[in-house]
Amino acid sequence: MSHIFQSLPPVPFLDPGSQEELGWRHWRPEAPVLGRSMAEWLRPAVAYWHSFVASGADPFGAATLPRPWEAMPDAMAGARQKAEAGFAFMERLGLPFFCFHDRDVAPEGASLREGARNLDTMADVLAAHMQRTGIRLLWGTANLFSHPRYMAGAATNPDPEVFACAAVQVRHAMEVTQRLGGENYVLWGGREGYDTLLNTDLAREDAQLGRFLNLVVEHKHKIGFTGTLLIEPKPHEPTKHQYDRDVATVYGFLVRHRLLGEVKVNIEANHATLAGHSFEHEVAMAAALGVLGSVDINRGDPQNGWDTDQFPTNAQELVPVMLEILRAGGLGSGGFNFDAKLRRQSIAPEDLLHAHVGGMEACAAALLWAARIIEDGRLEAARRERYAGAPWPGSLAEIADRALVEGLEPRPRSGGQERLENLVARLG
Amino acid sequence: MSHIFQSLPPVPFLDPGSQEELGWRHWRPEAPVLGRSMAEWLRPAVAYWHSFVASGADPFGAATLPRPWEAMPDAMAGARQKAEAGFAFMERLGLPFFCFHDRDVAPEGASLREGARNLDTMADVLAAHMQRTGIRLLWGTANLFSHPRYMAGAATNPDPEVFACAAVQVRHAMEVTQRLGGENYVLWGGREGYDTLLNTDLAREDAQLGRFLNLVVEHKHKIGFTGTLLIEPKPHEPTKHQYDRDVATVYGFLVRHRLLGEVKVNIEANHATLAGHSFEHEVAMAAALGVLGSVDINRGDPQNGWDTDQFPTNAQELVPVMLEILRAGGLGSGGFNFDAKLRRQSIAPEDLLHAHVGGMEACAAALLWAARIIEDGRLEAARRERYAGAPWPGSLAEIADRALVEGLEPRPRSGGQERLENLVARLG
Amino acid sequence: MSHIFQSLPPVPFLDPGSQEELGWRHWRPEAPVLGRSMAEWLRPAVAYWHSFVASGADPFGAATLPRPWEAMPDAMAGARQKAEAGFAFMERLGLPFFCFHDRDVAPEGASLREGARNLDTMADVLAAHMQRTGIRLLWGTANLFSHPRYMAGAATNPDPEVFACAAVQVRHAMEVTQRLGGENYVLWGGREGYDTLLNTDLAREDAQLGRFLNLVVEHKHKIGFTGTLLIEPKPHEPTKHQYDRDVATVYGFLVRHRLLGEVKVNIEANHATLAGHSFEHEVAMAAALGVLGSVDINRGDPQNGWDTDQFPTNAQELVPVMLEILRAGGLGSGGFNFDAKLRRQSIAPEDLLHAHVGGMEACAAALLWAARIIEDGRLEAARRERYAGAPWPGSLAEIADRALVEGLEPRPRSGGQERLENLVARLG
Amino acid sequence: MSHIFQSLPPVPFLDPGSQEELGWRHWRPEAPVLGRSMAEWLRPAVAYWHSFVASGADPFGAATLPRPWEAMPDAMAGARQKAEAGFAFMERLGLPFFCFHDRDVAPEGASLREGARNLDTMADVLAAHMQRTGIRLLWGTANLFSHPRYMAGAATNPDPEVFACAAVQVRHAMEVTQRLGGENYVLWGGREGYDTLLNTDLAREDAQLGRFLNLVVEHKHKIGFTGTLLIEPKPHEPTKHQYDRDVATVYGFLVRHRLLGEVKVNIEANHATLAGHSFEHEVAMAAALGVLGSVDINRGDPQNGWDTDQFPTNAQELVPVMLEILRAGGLGSGGFNFDAKLRRQSIAPEDLLHAHVGGMEACAAALLWAARIIEDGRLEAARRERYAGAPWPGSLAEIADRALVEGLEPRPRSGGQERLENLVARLG
Ligand SMILES: [Co+2]
Ligand SMILES: [Co+2]
Ligand SMILES: [Co+2]
Ligand SMILES: [Co+2]
Ligand SMILES: [Co+2]
Ligand SMILES: [Co+2]
Ligand SMILES: [Co+2]
Ligand SMILES: [Co+2]
Repeated sequence: MSHIFQSLPPVPFLDPGSQEELGWRHWRPEAPVLGRSMAEWLRPAVAYWHSFVASGADPFGAATLPRPWEAMPDAMAGARQKAEAGFAFMERLGLPFFCFHDRDVAPEGASLREGARNLDTMADVLAAHMQRTGIRLLWGTANLFSHPRYMAGAATNPDPEVFACAAVQVRHAMEVTQRLGGENYVLWGGREGYDTLLNTDLAREDAQLGRFLNLVVEHKHKIGFTGTLLIEPKPHEPTKHQYDRDVATVYGFLVRHRLLGEVKVNIEANHATLAGHSFEHEVAMAAALGVLGSVDINRGDPQNGWDTDQFPTNAQELVPVMLEILRAGGLGSGGFNFDAKLRRQSIAPEDLLHAHVGGMEACAAALLWAARIIEDGRLEAARRERYAGAPWPGSLAEIADRALVEGLEPRPRSGGQERLENLVARLG
Repeated sequence: MSHIFQSLPPVPFLDPGSQEELGWRHWRPEAPVLGRSMAEWLRPAVAYWHSFVASGADPFGAATLPRPWEAMPDAMAGARQKAEAGFAFMERLGLPFFCFHDRDVAPEGASLREGARNLDTMADVLAAHMQRTGIRLLWGTANLFSHPRYMAGAATNPDPEVFACAAVQVRHAMEVTQRLGGENYVLWGGREGYDTLLNTDLAREDAQLGRFLNLVVEHKHKIGFTGTLLIEPKPHEPTKHQYDRDVATVYGFLVRHRLLGEVKVNIEANHATLAGHSFEHEVAMAAALGVLGSVDINRGDPQNGWDTDQFPTNAQELVPVMLEILRAGGLGSGGFNFDAKLRRQSIAPEDLLHAHVGGMEACAAALLWAARIIEDGRLEAARRERYAGAPWPGSLAEIADRALVEGLEPRPRSGGQERLENLVARLG
Repeated sequence: MSHIFQSLPPVPFLDPGSQEELGWRHWRPEAPVLGRSMAEWLRPAVAYWHSFVASGADPFGAATLPRPWEAMPDAMAGARQKAEAGFAFMERLGLPFFCFHDRDVAPEGASLREGARNLDTMADVLAAHMQRTGIRLLWGTANLFSHPRYMAGAATNPDPEVFACAAVQVRHAMEVTQRLGGENYVLWGGREGYDTLLNTDLAREDAQLGRFLNLVVEHKHKIGFTGTLLIEPKPHEPTKHQYDRDVATVYGFLVRHRLLGEVKVNIEANHATLAGHSFEHEVAMAAALGVLGSVDINRGDPQNGWDTDQFPTNAQELVPVMLEILRAGGLGSGGFNFDAKLRRQSIAPEDLLHAHVGGMEACAAALLWAARIIEDGRLEAARRERYAGAPWPGSLAEIADRALVEGLEPRPRSGGQERLENLVARLG
Repeated sequence: MSHIFQSLPPVPFLDPGSQEELGWRHWRPEAPVLGRSMAEWLRPAVAYWHSFVASGADPFGAATLPRPWEAMPDAMAGARQKAEAGFAFMERLGLPFFCFHDRDVAPEGASLREGARNLDTMADVLAAHMQRTGIRLLWGTANLFSHPRYMAGAATNPDPEVFACAAVQVRHAMEVTQRLGGENYVLWGGREGYDTLLNTDLAREDAQLGRFLNLVVEHKHKIGFTGTLLIEPKPHEPTKHQYDRDVATVYGFLVRHRLLGEVKVNIEANHATLAGHSFEHEVAMAAALGVLGSVDINRGDPQNGWDTDQFPTNAQELVPVMLEILRAGGLGSGGFNFDAKLRRQSIAPEDLLHAHVGGMEACAAALLWAARIIEDGRLEAARRERYAGAPWPGSLAEIADRALVEGLEPRPRSGGQERLENLVARLG
């Protein structure tokens, strides 16, 4: 069968100094980095939705990217062609993982039941492609936001019937994920949020969301799925306010509903910045709170206020993130999912290859860079030394009394921020 | 003794249709609103720092506001004059409460001990003024951010000696608050945050902050202070990232350090908007999470990205906040603290009076407006009806199976946002 | 023919104290306001695209609003039904004007020529509806952004063929606007901008945009169209950077290409705020620069970073805008176009009526409010007095020498911002 | 005389692979880059104000940086010591230029005349240091924002006496700049803007600003100063809205007041981003409009909304800026002024050295990187090819008619954004 990615070449491994346009310079899956292979640290994945479903349409204009399978009158035939083209693309690219939503791989159908049948059928198709190519599933998820039924949320929808539809999809998507050997299952609260407080009962919606997650956890254990459950924070868009705003908010939610230890977070770079955080902040916070699971790697536009999901290309920007991940001992079952999409004008088939290669190269370069910083040791030493002092024991009154007796005049020490920033820059 | 507020008139109560510039039209402390007096719902307070200490200086220029006591060579004489002028102002204004930081009312001194002595002395001075005028203390707090020793934080400072200085100040400020009959004690994490992750150990700083708060709670009980402890969230400024980012983040912190039930939040409007939230979101979230304590009433500039602390003047903007507070049954021991400052060009003594009157009028009008909405009943009814459906019982599989059997096709219902917004607008 | 707006009632004029949900309280077209009727000041219009074309789809989900004509297999039959339903809606609403893009009213067709024929046919259909209902055309425009051919811009597209397609559409849309008695013709640079500077030649694109506008002006005069040409500024979205960023930027463009006096601006509230301006700033700037033409009235979400195009409901927010328009002597041939759309969950037919009524009421109330401020006179007097001083004559040296001789020590005067804000609030 | 920078070493030139903390790796002033030396392209300057005046104070806290001269009771003695320490620092750093405000180098004094005398005296002191060290003046400017008299603006102040004070300072600062061989004179509209439109007459303030600039231009020619006059855009802060918002706004102002050809722009990175632009956008726009003069090199915090003025350390971020400057043929008399300040905790004397070295290294590396891109040629070729098509001649009707006759269906071409971004990243 012919398809748009057919004539793309496999991405070659190049000499670092080569000036070829397309090829791997930094990404060497087997290269050792601080005791593991690069592939073990990064576990990169292609996102089925952005790469094979998204059309380049935006709120002001129609599809531009050629994705012929999306227009086929027989939706299941389209789904099959998409899978074939998609795996052909992924083979050429050569990254080890992919991720998908149920509705990316199988059409909605005319009823819940038909949608479920479609997914089962396509799961077999995917399994065959995976078998053939060796490409593995980093995580699966369910699309609980595109269908109009979810316009007021899925688990948080005031209508119990919509909650029930979400249960159908999540149960099935998780089971298919299990069948395909997926290593994680992600929940992104696409429309779990509100557009106006005037019609919203926050406590009720929180209770529904907590109950839903608990049901999912229970079901996971029942079916013996051993992957990690992950919530993906986002502050807003499409709703005015999304409940899973950021890592700290999700942490509070997990504790409140007794889900800590059962659920971690999948941190998206662009969602972090939309929430007013640096990407590294969210990763560091998750590590500190014990909920670091996986990352959706991309970048936003620093001037625009929506989720642009661009491929990263600035390795230095990612170094602080890699530092946090190295310090945390890696992502466990998580990985780096390229939740990134082509610009609307990037309509040539090879653009998708360029985009992924550029993004992957930035990640690989950043990992090596961060590893050099760890090996250099001066950054870690500076931090250790800064916190060398042991906090005083005792009650508030005991500490305060001792301070008054000693007539404390603490001597300020330089934070050395510029020196440390230079140290990072220099090791590039 | 003469001072700059001497010639200001007491603010008169006016007929609503009067076109006098200065006077009360909406604020009627004794007026009944849904079963309480307006004063009981709002409990408004003057902020000592913005009103009597702030000079109009900004990062680009020197002081403009005449606050002569700040320049007096004898700092304690200045503090006394400030208190006299401040209470004279508050008498003319006629609001029932005020709030202060330790360093607003008493100078730093050359040592911790001298600073403490200064505060004790000034506490007596304040007590006399309070006695004389009947003005009460809504809350006290300690300034743990202006002195250079706190440049890297107070409780989260890597230097245990700085932690100890913070203990001295907080113990004392809380005890003085108790002495003066204060109804709450507030902690704003002025520099509890970081400027760069490169030199920061998030987990260590979180542990220190948690320990500090626990020490404060323990001390509160030891001394029998019955006021409410409050944390005031802010996302950034002065630091790049403040730990007490927003209500949801503080909630997670409280749970993590077993402080839920002991500490609530003081929500500032401008801090909410800096964090990317609406003011009403933060209030609603705090109410839903059971931590709503008090509010710092002001507004930010929608175009600028720092804490402008302006007086509110648009009552309709405050209606959603008042609705949440009415629904929550009020603020308990909390109130509406005008954490708002004059614009730098507002150098006339009467400007401070105009500013507070405008802000108070907006709050009073918004309270009455929200009460009309509650009494009208249609907004509440719309919300009740939206959530009328009872969630289904059962496990994920049970719910999903039933949904498949029933062949669910949930019928979407209008969210009616524009209709509800009109309902709110119409009742103004 | 039956359609979704059929059962909607005409909006009644109500007593201001009435608690009916739907009706006019402030909007009284004939009511005199500072020497004109309210209708003459405001000239409100319904936007064909948001009201009758937009489907509620967003980047994360499918259409929710019932707009059955959009799905009809015969696109021209759909266009006719849309026009019938649209005018039926507008009759019930009762506002005097509407606005449209060529592609809102007539389908694209399979070729430029077919698209043109469709537009001609539909122009006759619209003319008949206008004749029948008395509803007039405030402005027409061409959609140069939805079709994939415009993905890299229209007039600024590097491909001369796309420039030529834009010429076809704009010529035709302007001629149809003339035929229908339109009072203005608007150009919104939908994709006139860039996504990355790496592939962009700013000077070349500026030259193309300048040439295009000059061709349009020349054509306008050739055909004797007497309406006003208007550029609508927007800072970004869909592109990263739009060339017509804001009023000041468009002003510079007009001067550079000798278009001042020929072209004015159509200011959209939400575009102003996306550009980091207040709405009133843009209106005041346009008035000061002599290019104030018309306004697209709506509002953005203060927390989100994209064009939410919500209906305004807070009259006080609009008072500064109305003040500027009153001072400028009105909008001339311009008006208030509701470039505002329903929230995605507002799927009931009556929601569209509620939305427009709420928006119109806010505008009418704000106009009356601003008129009271003008009549009160104190705000204008304060401003006059502030600028009473006459600048000194002479060269830099003469002024400086005189200042040194006089030993100037200028006495600062209060800006009185809070007092003036209160004055505005009080007259509500 | 001893001072805080005394023990700092001169910054050594290091081998690129060296792991020394402090030293030059990329900055090689004499190294040839596309036909000029690196020093000729960059012309870097130290900012007197941030380096030797700024204290680390922020709106929430007192000075932290040791700048003992600022506290000396004899202000002129302080100014002399500051100059000595400052030049000692600059000698060790080894960059060729510096920049200053009148009030950075000489105290205000008790009157305009005394301030002027102080400046004259200090000009001689600076001249001697410049003579001794060979450090040159990139530009001078006047501080028209710190003194309370400027709280409502300088040239735009409603009070003619304040306008006259501004004339005194600007005349003098420009003459001193000329005396010291300064190559440019900069005007930053510190408070030329407004805090509220309610008390503002935009047209009047625009007229005053235009007149002032014209007086300055006239005086420049009268005294035969051959440097370039530069306006520095900024969108807000300290005022709500500054008139010199961004490059496009300043361009319109220059045209309106017939100043084009006389005045160019000094673009600050952080001001660009505060205005919602990328730094490279502003530089490219200035180049396209023929007003590119100089740059203030720094960076903002992507998460915070005020002017953080940090030192750049990410070379890749600066590559697009360097590309624009290389294409524009350089900055002429302009240069790279480090308008960047230490973080408040960077209190060690060597921190100032680290900060400048890191910033300079980022600029030098970015220049070399951009030069490699130019030499590689593929980026330029891609852009040339994209614009290869010649726009059609003729009127709107002629172009439209031809398009219809030809039945145009333009073939979309890929914008290739990801490929070009990779090309840039790869040449690092
Ligand atoms: Co994602
Ligand atoms: Co995203
Ligand atoms: Co506050
Ligand atoms: Co504040
Ligand atoms: Co518009
Ligand atoms: Co819009
Ligand atoms: Co600058
Ligand atoms: Co700056």
